Amino acid sequence: MNISDRALNMSFSPVRKLLPYSDAAEKKGITVCKLNIGQPDIVTPDSFFDGLHKFQEKVVKYSDSRGIIQLRETFSKSCAKDGMDFSVDEILITQGGSEAIIFTILAICNEGDEVLIPEPFYANYSSFTGISGAKIVPIPTLIENGFHLPSKKEIEKLITPKTRAILFSNPGNPTGTVYREAEIKMLGEIAKEHNIYLLADEVYREFIYDDKIEYTSVTNIKNIEDRVILIDSISKHYSACGARIGFIASKNSELLNYILKFCQARLCASTIEQFAAANLINTMDSYIQEVKRKYTNRRDLIYKYLKDIPGVISPKPEGALYVLVQLPVEDTEKFAQWLLTDYSLDNKTLLLAPGGGFYKDEKMGKDKVRLSFCSSEEDIEYGMIILKNALTEYNKLKI
Amino acid sequence: MNISDRALNMSFSPVRKLLPYSDAAEKKGITVCKLNIGQPDIVTPDSFFDGLHKFQEKVVKYSDSRGIIQLRETFSKSCAKDGMDFSVDEILITQGGSEAIIFTILAICNEGDEVLIPEPFYANYSSFTGISGAKIVPIPTLIENGFHLPSKKEIEKLITPKTRAILFSNPGNPTGTVYREAEIKMLGEIAKEHNIYLLADEVYREFIYDDKIEYTSVTNIKNIEDRVILIDSISKHYSACGARIGFIASKNSELLNYILKFCQARLCASTIEQFAAANLINTMDSYIQEVKRKYTNRRDLIYKYLKDIPGVISPKPEGALYVLVQLPVEDTEKFAQWLLTDYSLDNKTLLLAPGGGFYKDEKMGKDKVRLSFCSSEEDIEYGMIILKNALTEYNKLKI
Repeated sequence: MNISDRALNMSFSPVRKLLPYSDAAEKKGITVCKLNIGQPDIVTPDSFFDGLHKFQEKVVKYSDSRGIIQLRETFSKSCAKDGMDFSVDEILITQGGSEAIIFTILAICNEGDEVLIPEPFYANYSSFTGISGAKIVPIPTLIENGFHLPSKKEIEKLITPKTRAILFSNPGNPTGTVYREAEIKMLGEIAKEHNIYLLADEVYREFIYDDKIEYTSVTNIKNIEDRVILIDSISKHYSACGARIGFIASKNSELLNYILKFCQARLCASTIEQFAAANLINTMDSYIQEVKRKYTNRRDLIYKYLKDIPGVISPKPEGALYVLVQLPVEDTEKFAQWLLTDYSLDNKTLLLAPGGGFYKDEKMGKDKVRLSFCSSEEDIEYGMIILKNALTEYNKLKI
Repeated sequence: MNISDRALNMSFSPVRKLLPYSDAAEKKGITVCKLNIGQPDIVTPDSFFDGLHKFQEKVVKYSDSRGIIQLRETFSKSCAKDGMDFSVDEILITQGGSEAIIFTILAICNEGDEVLIPEPFYANYSSFTGISGAKIVPIPTLIENGFHLPSKKEIEKLITPKTRAILFSNPGNPTGTVYREAEIKMLGEIAKEHNIYLLADEVYREFIYDDKIEYTSVTNIKNIEDRVILIDSISKHYSACGARIGFIASKNSELLNYILKFCQARLCASTIEQFAAANLINTMDSYIQEVKRKYTNRRDLIYKYLKDIPGVISPKPEGALYVLVQLPVEDTEKFAQWLLTDYSLDNKTLLLAPGGGFYKDEKMGKDKVRLSFCSSEEDIEYGMIILKNALTEYNKLKI
């Protein structure tokens, strides 16, 4: 029987495909430091659980397809705090940032249309575009430039009559790169001159670790408001990944109205988790500050270790919860698997996300891995010691 | 800027598009009996809220993309109770039945592929297939036959090399029709002979109101197990529509593995609502019996009224929460709007779902409306009195 081309062509999550080996290692009694996935260990704020327990309805009813008004108000206010102006009518609640991107691409791309994405990119962007049948055209960025954008001219070379949008995450997953004002303005100019959308995944917006970097949201660039779609989510910001609450914000009411059709098709986002999330407006400022302080320390810690491991090339991550590093091995997928099947140090080993999954052509990322620093300092420290020792041992084996 | 063809072609929810008129009527102080939507007034069972409050994790984490094991166990057991055999590995949790159908169609259909659906059909089936670019080919059914299926020969005439599946809801939304064993066996034969899937939306499976009708699930037909995909959900069964918890069950492990790619792309279904739903296994049998008793009474009540309204043609609904009736008006959409803008009886009026939305060619349903009987007996009774009086008045106006 038939399997669709999109299902055949979609990859299994590169972050998740080593899990069976990891499970097997754990069954053998080995502790696995999981630096492969962006699952923070930081507690979800009390405000979320307070919101959850405030839900006292007797019937768990369908809610508004656009999202409950209380939650849209919460997001409108949290945007305002960050200097971004979106009214409740300019916001649609989605089942996580994932659904936000899927619905937006479904609304703007036909099969065969093209979406430019700076590469390396979040692996699920392939699935999100693949669902609509759109094609990713990578904008190559280099580790030696800290994964910052190439020139306007280089990007414009990639534009064809089928280009519909530039999708990017800023701060970057998997790179940890924060685009500067000049880069964001350049994207704005390109979008305007070539009449395409800018789809900005800013879910890590709060996590920038250098005081001298001033964050520029594409939503604040003038005269391109109608082509900007903001993707946001509570997942990382409030350490509530499992709630699956995100949103789309845009000044383009026509586009939002088309996206609403997809929201209506799935009726509504989870009602109770929306109520819980609406109460995040009552989160103490100290919570956010404390989270940022922790992540800053973790970023500093992982970078301190990385720059001292022989043969490892690592930019200093500027934001988000990740760093994409180059390892002195030929194939990081094989190395990552070997770590789980054949290696341990003091009965501990390491789970990494091989770099191939963050490139359209997997070979391009073969010498890289993504490390997540949203785990505890202890895990990061252990992980880095394991990485250093394992690299030495692995490279001895091959001689 | 570009809007995709699928977004342009998708309809706004027919059930929801009268809402602005309904809101305006309510603002004028008119009570609106809402028989337009399948939102039960029946309370969600305590077991669900107990499950919700049992969630004591400090971090709302991503959960397994397949769904948490506890919830898959719950569904495996609830299937077993209904005589259906699915292990936890044959079940994928989805964000409502909607996502279950969307993912399945994405996995089996390319753009331009065809899905046969008995017509009239649940309006969102158009959106679900539209997302993948697949086309609906309606299997016409007639009110005078109680919307039962036509002959095998008639159905086979509609099959082309692009046909991938037959999607059907049983019991039927919007018809209330329950297919007999012979009909289900016929669908099984067609699927086997033409090598296509059977996608069975059985979310109303528990709601059958005539003791002499024995329910036949397509999952129990022999020798077609690999082509059957069951769609189920807690929405109606446990009156928890807003939780958005559904599942896909199939013996076809290859297909499930492809659908898993889509599950991985959106990471996971809402974690907390999965925990709440897992505890539904502890729902008292008396809850289900009481819900069924209430719906049986409501079905009897609405039918008692309907068969006495002059000019109204109504089959006796056998299951689900709906009945599709023919009204003595030319255009039920205009009539439904008039009810909200120009009519009231004792300061009350009625919100109906016009029939056009349940047909591929809207004109075919122009003389029909779907009535939902999941509201209170009082609302149903008032609604029917309003309908009878309003029809008389509306038809006088036109003379």
